[in-house]
Amino acid sequence: MPMNYQQILNEIYEEIQPELLRGKVADYIPALAEVEKGQFAMTVTLADGTVYSVGDSKKAFSIQSISKVFTFTLALDIYSKELYKRVGVEPSGNPFNSLVQLEYENGIPRNPFINAGAITITDSLISYYKDEYKTLEVIMNFIREISGNPTLSFDQVVANSEMEHGDRNLALARLMKSFGNFENDVLGSVMTYFKHCAITMNTEELSRSMLFLAFGGTDPISGKVFVSTRKAKRINAVMLTCGHYDASGEFAFHVGLPAKSGVGGGIAAVVPGVMSIAVWSPALNKYGNSHSGTLALEKFTTKTGLSIF
Amino acid sequence: MPMNYQQILNEIYEEIQPELLRGKVADYIPALAEVEKGQFAMTVTLADGTVYSVGDSKKAFSIQSISKVFTFTLALDIYSKELYKRVGVEPSGNPFNSLVQLEYENGIPRNPFINAGAITITDSLISYYKDEYKTLEVIMNFIREISGNPTLSFDQVVANSEMEHGDRNLALARLMKSFGNFENDVLGSVMTYFKHCAITMNTEELSRSMLFLAFGGTDPISGKVFVSTRKAKRINAVMLTCGHYDASGEFAFHVGLPAKSGVGGGIAAVVPGVMSIAVWSPALNKYGNSHSGTLALEKFTTKTGLSIF
Amino acid sequence: MPMNYQQILNEIYEEIQPELLRGKVADYIPALAEVEKGQFAMTVTLADGTVYSVGDSKKAFSIQSISKVFTFTLALDIYSKELYKRVGVEPSGNPFNSLVQLEYENGIPRNPFINAGAITITDSLISYYKDEYKTLEVIMNFIREISGNPTLSFDQVVANSEMEHGDRNLALARLMKSFGNFENDVLGSVMTYFKHCAITMNTEELSRSMLFLAFGGTDPISGKVFVSTRKAKRINAVMLTCGHYDASGEFAFHVGLPAKSGVGGGIAAVVPGVMSIAVWSPALNKYGNSHSGTLALEKFTTKTGLSIF
Amino acid sequence: MPMNYQQILNEIYEEIQPELLRGKVADYIPALAEVEKGQFAMTVTLADGTVYSVGDSKKAFSIQSISKVFTFTLALDIYSKELYKRVGVEPSGNPFNSLVQLEYENGIPRNPFINAGAITITDSLISYYKDEYKTLEVIMNFIREISGNPTLSFDQVVANSEMEHGDRNLALARLMKSFGNFENDVLGSVMTYFKHCAITMNTEELSRSMLFLAFGGTDPISGKVFVSTRKAKRINAVMLTCGHYDASGEFAFHVGLPAKSGVGGGIAAVVPGVMSIAVWSPALNKYGNSHSGTLALEKFTTKTGLSIF
Repeated sequence: MPMNYQQILNEIYEEIQPELLRGKVADYIPALAEVEKGQFAMTVTLADGTVYSVGDSKKAFSIQSISKVFTFTLALDIYSKELYKRVGVEPSGNPFNSLVQLEYENGIPRNPFINAGAITITDSLISYYKDEYKTLEVIMNFIREISGNPTLSFDQVVANSEMEHGDRNLALARLMKSFGNFENDVLGSVMTYFKHCAITMNTEELSRSMLFLAFGGTDPISGKVFVSTRKAKRINAVMLTCGHYDASGEFAFHVGLPAKSGVGGGIAAVVPGVMSIAVWSPALNKYGNSHSGTLALEKFTTKTGLSIF
Repeated sequence: MPMNYQQILNEIYEEIQPELLRGKVADYIPALAEVEKGQFAMTVTLADGTVYSVGDSKKAFSIQSISKVFTFTLALDIYSKELYKRVGVEPSGNPFNSLVQLEYENGIPRNPFINAGAITITDSLISYYKDEYKTLEVIMNFIREISGNPTLSFDQVVANSEMEHGDRNLALARLMKSFGNFENDVLGSVMTYFKHCAITMNTEELSRSMLFLAFGGTDPISGKVFVSTRKAKRINAVMLTCGHYDASGEFAFHVGLPAKSGVGGGIAAVVPGVMSIAVWSPALNKYGNSHSGTLALEKFTTKTGLSIF
Repeated sequence: MPMNYQQILNEIYEEIQPELLRGKVADYIPALAEVEKGQFAMTVTLADGTVYSVGDSKKAFSIQSISKVFTFTLALDIYSKELYKRVGVEPSGNPFNSLVQLEYENGIPRNPFINAGAITITDSLISYYKDEYKTLEVIMNFIREISGNPTLSFDQVVANSEMEHGDRNLALARLMKSFGNFENDVLGSVMTYFKHCAITMNTEELSRSMLFLAFGGTDPISGKVFVSTRKAKRINAVMLTCGHYDASGEFAFHVGLPAKSGVGGGIAAVVPGVMSIAVWSPALNKYGNSHSGTLALEKFTTKTGLSIF
Repeated sequence: MPMNYQQILNEIYEEIQPELLRGKVADYIPALAEVEKGQFAMTVTLADGTVYSVGDSKKAFSIQSISKVFTFTLALDIYSKELYKRVGVEPSGNPFNSLVQLEYENGIPRNPFINAGAITITDSLISYYKDEYKTLEVIMNFIREISGNPTLSFDQVVANSEMEHGDRNLALARLMKSFGNFENDVLGSVMTYFKHCAITMNTEELSRSMLFLAFGGTDPISGKVFVSTRKAKRINAVMLTCGHYDASGEFAFHVGLPAKSGVGGGIAAVVPGVMSIAVWSPALNKYGNSHSGTLALEKFTTKTGLSIF
């Protein structure tokens, strides 16, 4: 008998209510600080396109670092192994924006999901597409395609606000440039990075976007191959070991799924061979991951037994 | 049609031959430095007890850090969540014996598989069993039971040699003691740790020992419950994120299985719900993991598609 | 009987000849890399204006980090104790351009002579003089006055070349800005810093420039007070503890004088109450200090007994 | 006209009264925690043996880290340059007991005044004198001779208490041993170190003990040469750059004298060619240096103009 996912989501929705005001919304930029606590949405998408949702699943939020999964996918598809000259695949063991490790390791970021790594990935895409606007268009079109929403866009106010408070990310980029691991204009590349982080999606779109990673790189609905199976598995492995900043180990430990979180409160996860999941709740725990989103996913794998372990 | 595991192992055995002399045997103590390169063994154990092996699968080797999986299992079973006051579950992002991180993080080791973490786990077992000899006996008897070999023992020469070269591990223990995270005699606890690291097993025994972790904490052959399913999944998660020192991300990336390596050249892995695997080849790569053992596991998941991702 | 300084300089000049080709010229920018090894000059200036020189004492060189003494003097005169909110007075214990320490210490540079500290000093002067061009003019005019050469200038080619290779210094400034310890435009402030580092002087001018610091802040020839005695002593103390990057302890140990070096091969020193000294020889030791310049000063304090210890 | 040192000490004594209860007494071991705040003593000793004192100058206190000056003197006399293979002369830029730097720098302590450096110095003396008891006797006899008090001793209660809380120092020694920079029994060497740190002296004895360092290594009263002038100057240089843990720069900046502090509240200083000074007041500032002792010395150099800068 197949599991009743809708009922499981409903249970989680009810159980999670007392948690929704816990944690605090990202407040380093005004545009994010204004988002109201207490919101929650969760969507599950199966191979045949069946969708189960609870909560505000049509409400768009800033996907932030979740966008790093999509830029990593594009760059890995283009560069294959060559990419690892510029970025590693090891957990960082340090807060997500630390310059310390980057300096000790000669400007090669630990993995594509810490800020330095994601910025270098964006820089590598600009090198390939020759132009930051063309690059942004490629990224946007890719996400529009996998999400099934051809009108997806990014929030210019958020992107500008990030740049206004972007000194640390600019310092990371400058430091990489000083080590020879940066190829394009620092301001332009970091702005492109901020733009793709400012993309807004709802959980239905986000869950749909991750489906190809749950199915070996091929969208099970359209049959379209986005990356090879080998690369899809590797993207999932990096999500598992590095997807949640300095709490990646704890996430693997409690949830047990490859997933990527963003400071907008979203988390996108995959159950390989089974489904993709997106959850959103804006209040964050001390590691910068959605407090209720993490709990909801833990409840989901406990109730369904769908952890990869 | 079920996969022909024996044939897959045979293929791997043949393909791996040119690699067997690559890397170098652990040489920080004479007893390990004497082990000859070029040796290789691999064993797969299924739920019904079927065993497939190639190579020197009856030849015992020093399991070293793989023993940390078993002491972690015992301690987690005893202390549950209390254990996390003394040791974390995050990847370390630093070489496996670094004091730096331990000092910055106030004497709480990052995870139970770095040396500091494993020593604190052994110390916690001594606190529980009151006595270091009793503790060693409990550890030995547990491993004898799960391996199916009631005569398993440890190599006293290796343990003594470790102690002679044990200054760094003693420094780790002293540092934890200075932070209040050490409860028993430093020399006695570290010696107990060296003894369980000096346990010798062959790949058939090691593979058999891991079977309960592949099946949610319950041995599928005897039906005996060793730990709860929840705890077994968590042990697997920690193996995935922290099982290979500073190359855990790469191992997850290339192999995609929860596994733990030791400097004796062994690697023990699980495919949740399917099987346990042990591989041994003494020459190590630059991260201290078996060079050919890692490659053999990568070949295995590629050929079988049995990665968790 | 007064010492015969000319004879001592002549002896040093002779003894130092076999050392002049040792070490290597700074090569991180072409303009400095072109300077020929083997050159040497040394000048002593007494309170009454008597000057003793050997070698190429009329040949101008890039004073580089020695300029930090003069900007620190100007900033300390303006801000007094307020300055220590932005920069410390402790030795750094790390290579001179490390971001690590700056990050751990929340964007407050350890001292005014590491790059981050000197850049923040320049930034503080721009805040005071409202404008980077006005600031540069004030710095230039101050150095023209104390050196007695009203036509001193900086080398625009060197300054531009520094900016082209200036990513690490820009990263330092960005990082300080992210911590709120930077007030003006990053590019403009760093460019002003590069310009004052690119000032060219010969040893006679440089020695003359330091005379006020040997005499409690007052030029003993003109009687003009440049800083208070208290501040002059403190500038000397910081030169002693922090004047030579990661080799400040060794310099104090071997030479025993407050002094500041630059990667152009110059070193400016004071013997409090007695004299100022400048030495120049472009080949650097592994710490980035003039190899022969350091040796010449060691010989000087050995021959004269004029160490402060 | 010679300065009236007694009057200056009297002034300082009066001015310092409101400060005496500021700061906190070292409390990491009971024996030190019991010392009453509010006590103060200061003694100046001139070349001809004239002594000026105020306060409790006959009251003995635990000299603690000040003893490191005397063991460094003995070791430098024995080993000369060979000593620098085991310990550096650079300021540490980190709290005085940090393992981090020691690990990054391969077990070679930054300087002889951080704990690791002083322990390695004691270890080097034991290697020379073959025996820890003989070594302790040599150290005691040396300090008895330079202090003029043949009955000086150490406080066994303090030494034992240090050992009971000595895990961090034992960790430092173990770490150095793991890098090959430790030659004798770890427990025995560290115990010898704790014993010489537990020596008790009053300010008159301590001031007298430092006189040879103020006069180029030769006691100006007896004419006895304890170390060469060259070595005495170097010891003074290391006191200036490294004598006050993480506040050495600030001490040089505010006081401007070579000096060494201890957590017992003592500070010993020299004015080269002029005098030695000892001050004691047990309440410490946040860096572990005597709060009132530091202030008293600052007042002294301000009133007398006797800073070396």
